[in-house]
Amino acid sequence: MRTIKLTIQYDGTNYVGWQRQPNGVSIQGMLEDALAPIEGAAVDVHGAGRTDAGVHALGQVASVELTARHDTPTLFRALNAVLPNDIRVVSVEEAPHGFHARFSAAAKTYEYRIVNAPIVSAFVHRYVWHITPPLDLGAMRAAAEPLVGRHDFAAFQGAGSTVTSTERTIERLEWEDGGGYDLPIVMRVTGDGFLRHMVRNIVGTLVEIGVGRWDPWRVLELLDGRDRTQAGPTAPASGLFLTRVVY
Amino acid sequence: MRTIKLTIQYDGTNYVGWQRQPNGVSIQGMLEDALAPIEGAAVDVHGAGRTDAGVHALGQVASVELTARHDTPTLFRALNAVLPNDIRVVSVEEAPHGFHARFSAAAKTYEYRIVNAPIVSAFVHRYVWHITPPLDLGAMRAAAEPLVGRHDFAAFQGAGSTVTSTERTIERLEWEDGGGYDLPIVMRVTGDGFLRHMVRNIVGTLVEIGVGRWDPWRVLELLDGRDRTQAGPTAPASGLFLTRVVY
Repeated sequence: MRTIKLTIQYDGTNYVGWQRQPNGVSIQGMLEDALAPIEGAAVDVHGAGRTDAGVHALGQVASVELTARHDTPTLFRALNAVLPNDIRVVSVEEAPHGFHARFSAAAKTYEYRIVNAPIVSAFVHRYVWHITPPLDLGAMRAAAEPLVGRHDFAAFQGAGSTVTSTERTIERLEWEDGGGYDLPIVMRVTGDGFLRHMVRNIVGTLVEIGVGRWDPWRVLELLDGRDRTQAGPTAPASGLFLTRVVY
Repeated sequence: MRTIKLTIQYDGTNYVGWQRQPNGVSIQGMLEDALAPIEGAAVDVHGAGRTDAGVHALGQVASVELTARHDTPTLFRALNAVLPNDIRVVSVEEAPHGFHARFSAAAKTYEYRIVNAPIVSAFVHRYVWHITPPLDLGAMRAAAEPLVGRHDFAAFQGAGSTVTSTERTIERLEWEDGGGYDLPIVMRVTGDGFLRHMVRNIVGTLVEIGVGRWDPWRVLELLDGRDRTQAGPTAPASGLFLTRVVY
């Protein structure tokens, strides 16, 4: 058996998310279905991050164990020939034995994109959250500061999660101004792991602050209170991208 | 009656083209359907360019005569609220009486985008033509030179057209290097008018030259011969954008 590391990009709009599910088309399912005829048997593809329905990826990483002996350029061509255009394998590499895309990951970076203008371009609406009231980016940046570091993020966890610990470390969190009237404002966040809906709940909370409905120190209260019902709404999946996994 | 000038952007992927048709959803139809309840009666929307199925626009212009008295900011908001996300009205202006988006147009600019790399990003595949063999952009630029000026473009006209004259003037035609491994190469062409499929047939011909199947001087022979069956294949609609109309 050899271990293969795949780096994958996808437009999540038409998928139920990363994870294979009985009632819908998943990215994992598409990759497993593309690899099975190459391997001549069913395969298990493990992803670094279980992106939700509608969430995109620029640098998702997956691992798979294969007996098939095709070299990596051949696997690259074969996978991209079979996969639909909205899923692209951007690299195929041999990985050390025991490499596991999820368990070996040291950090992940997500980006969240917001267009803060009266209208959104017909070409980017699938990849952003459209917000018309003006956002106070300074207040959002200030409010985000207490999130950096190791904290209990229970207040930002989505319902239905069964993890044992809700402590995570956010290494960096920054907001980048779009630099133009209708260009996306981007939140870039790097951490050792993220709870279910955590990035989208952080964005939803910071946007409540950005439009002036909540004070910036609300974030500190949320971290202390650990009560999901007090945080902001979950930001739409369309704006979220898994951009990088560090090993 | 007042005359309104609309500037429109659309992702043409899911439409049968600009023109209203009995069997499918058109951009013109969506605009007419959005304006009818505002006007309280059926309206006729005239577009500057009749883009084909799957062709996009960044700066299509349309004119419409209205009796409705709503000011232009209200029309802007009402239209964008009703139209789907892949059609956006980017401006609404009062136009002089007699202004007609098509007959008043002095020039139009189209762009055609090609990705010349092993794979195309999952996020841009709807907006480009993907070509894997390396293109000789120098040969394509040289071959395009004789197209600039006033010529009979009969060889580049799509089938089924009924125009009386096939003479048109191309004012400018340039190829812009993508500037990066998988960034689109862009052909930008400005002229006083374009025959059916003319831009796509020019691109299809220049690509035959770019991959080395044809010599650059083939373009001169095609212009002289005026025989459509001798030109290159029609490039896919996905790469074409109507970017600007000059009045």
